[in-house]
Amino acid sequence: MNAGPAPSVAVLAGGVGAARFLRGLLRVCRPADVTAIVNVGDDFTLHGLNISPDLDTVTYTLSEQINPETGWGRAGETWRVLTELGRLGGQDWFRLGDLDLALHLYRTQRRSEGATLSQVTGEIAARFGLELRLLPVSDDPIQTRLTPAEPADAPEIDFQDYFVAQRHGVAVRAVRFAGIEAAEPAPGVLDALGTADIVVVAPSNPFVSIGPVVDVPGVREVLVQRRDSVVAVSPIVGGASIKGPAGAMMRELGHDPSAVGIARLYAGFAGTLVIDNADRDLAAAVSDAGMAPVVTDTIMSSLDRAAALAATALDAVSGP
Amino acid sequence: MNAGPAPSVAVLAGGVGAARFLRGLLRVCRPADVTAIVNVGDDFTLHGLNISPDLDTVTYTLSEQINPETGWGRAGETWRVLTELGRLGGQDWFRLGDLDLALHLYRTQRRSEGATLSQVTGEIAARFGLELRLLPVSDDPIQTRLTPAEPADAPEIDFQDYFVAQRHGVAVRAVRFAGIEAAEPAPGVLDALGTADIVVVAPSNPFVSIGPVVDVPGVREVLVQRRDSVVAVSPIVGGASIKGPAGAMMRELGHDPSAVGIARLYAGFAGTLVIDNADRDLAAAVSDAGMAPVVTDTIMSSLDRAAALAATALDAVSGP
Repeated sequence: MNAGPAPSVAVLAGGVGAARFLRGLLRVCRPADVTAIVNVGDDFTLHGLNISPDLDTVTYTLSEQINPETGWGRAGETWRVLTELGRLGGQDWFRLGDLDLALHLYRTQRRSEGATLSQVTGEIAARFGLELRLLPVSDDPIQTRLTPAEPADAPEIDFQDYFVAQRHGVAVRAVRFAGIEAAEPAPGVLDALGTADIVVVAPSNPFVSIGPVVDVPGVREVLVQRRDSVVAVSPIVGGASIKGPAGAMMRELGHDPSAVGIARLYAGFAGTLVIDNADRDLAAAVSDAGMAPVVTDTIMSSLDRAAALAATALDAVSGP
Repeated sequence: MNAGPAPSVAVLAGGVGAARFLRGLLRVCRPADVTAIVNVGDDFTLHGLNISPDLDTVTYTLSEQINPETGWGRAGETWRVLTELGRLGGQDWFRLGDLDLALHLYRTQRRSEGATLSQVTGEIAARFGLELRLLPVSDDPIQTRLTPAEPADAPEIDFQDYFVAQRHGVAVRAVRFAGIEAAEPAPGVLDALGTADIVVVAPSNPFVSIGPVVDVPGVREVLVQRRDSVVAVSPIVGGASIKGPAGAMMRELGHDPSAVGIARLYAGFAGTLVIDNADRDLAAAVSDAGMAPVVTDTIMSSLDRAAALAATALDAVSGP
């Protein structure tokens, strides 16, 4: 990173990969200068509770409360409630631990009292001691829905049905974000995207994490206007995703499952793509696809590596 | 009890007192011949969860899962979720234990799927191994609301606010069951009340437990028609309630806080009142108030005593 004042940064974020990236970013930026704008397309209601998986993964990760083995849920988690719920014949496919449940109870009660998702998110972030600004991309409901590839008349399924219940083991042929046309960016989202020195697209699934952020009306337009200072980190390394179904989904949806495929998806609104050393041979093709390639180690196997990745990403689009 | 075949019994029930009475009753009746018709005026929503305190107290008591020290909640309960919720700044005044929460999650999810309260109640009763028939008095929402005596312009408060948050320490001047005019008896309620050999009004609070059962349209009418085979157990002994605010509420609402006051409240729809040995001097006054008095030990300090009380109550209105 250059020696000027630390930049303000807005990050488009999904779940685990984005959370790890943000944790590194907070090592190289002032937390107060960072705004994370988080996907809500995975949000759903179960047992009457409002569950926001990506917001919670970011919150738990940045507060060092995450379960380091799974990348989701709380460290030191217990399963009293879910075990009993299973005994009662209830739905226990979505693994809600006792500590995690407390957060969902809090969010649901506050929402029932009229608080918006972004208000509750701010309260939770403060309670967990987060110093960055954490925003859901929208306070309005957006539901990521997927159409299985087979059979030909397969009905759409909810994201959590696909991702958790079916362990993303089902090929999909379409992704849709129900409600997104009517969704408004949450307060502060467009302002952060418009005024931050740098916007980073975190290494998250392009279809089900970044897609439902960029497609909120107004978001893509702001990014397009400033694409030269928008840098994305490829979630695809060596033809596969580090974690989750991004690589498989790219193939199923007719895209090249590579950093080049990512460049083709992001070139319209982001000028620079950080790709892994393993993909250095693809740099020219990324460039041909319209994004300036930056080659580095993108595997965030430690906090130091995540911080180095964040510094490289910022450097790539920092002014002279 | 006479030596004939065991009678079929329908019981109007509130929470702790009714649950203890039912536990005794099941010792002297065939469980399949017993229908408990339970108050839902205390039901409420907190943290997005549908909570039915009286139904749950009956379920936990009859399945031997009740916390014997409190009379509510589960034995062996833990508090992982509520402790964390408190740490997050959430509402922890209503003591929801981990095992108890599992039941509320189950009920809420099933309700969100379209199941009625009586359907869910039946599922839960089966899962807890109950052999009696357990019915909410109505599948429709009924909300017990109380008006504090002071100040003169005090707004109504919810039952749980009064009962739990304020530990029934506030004097009240009015009780109302919001929604009851539009509530229909749950499937099976009127039939059970019409066809049971005996109807018992359990020793529960006359205002906030029995009131919102009897006032469901159609219930009182059925009882009035058969009042000679309706027997009530006085919840007031020696001028005070065994547990809870019944005695204080009688005074505050302008009634005599005694078995005689109970007789005046119930005489229209019940022919017989079981009163405690301590109140034997009141037998003539109970009779004057229009109910046939039966004097016995009504303190259910053990299962045997509860069974003896139940047998006495049934005997009092059994045919020759």
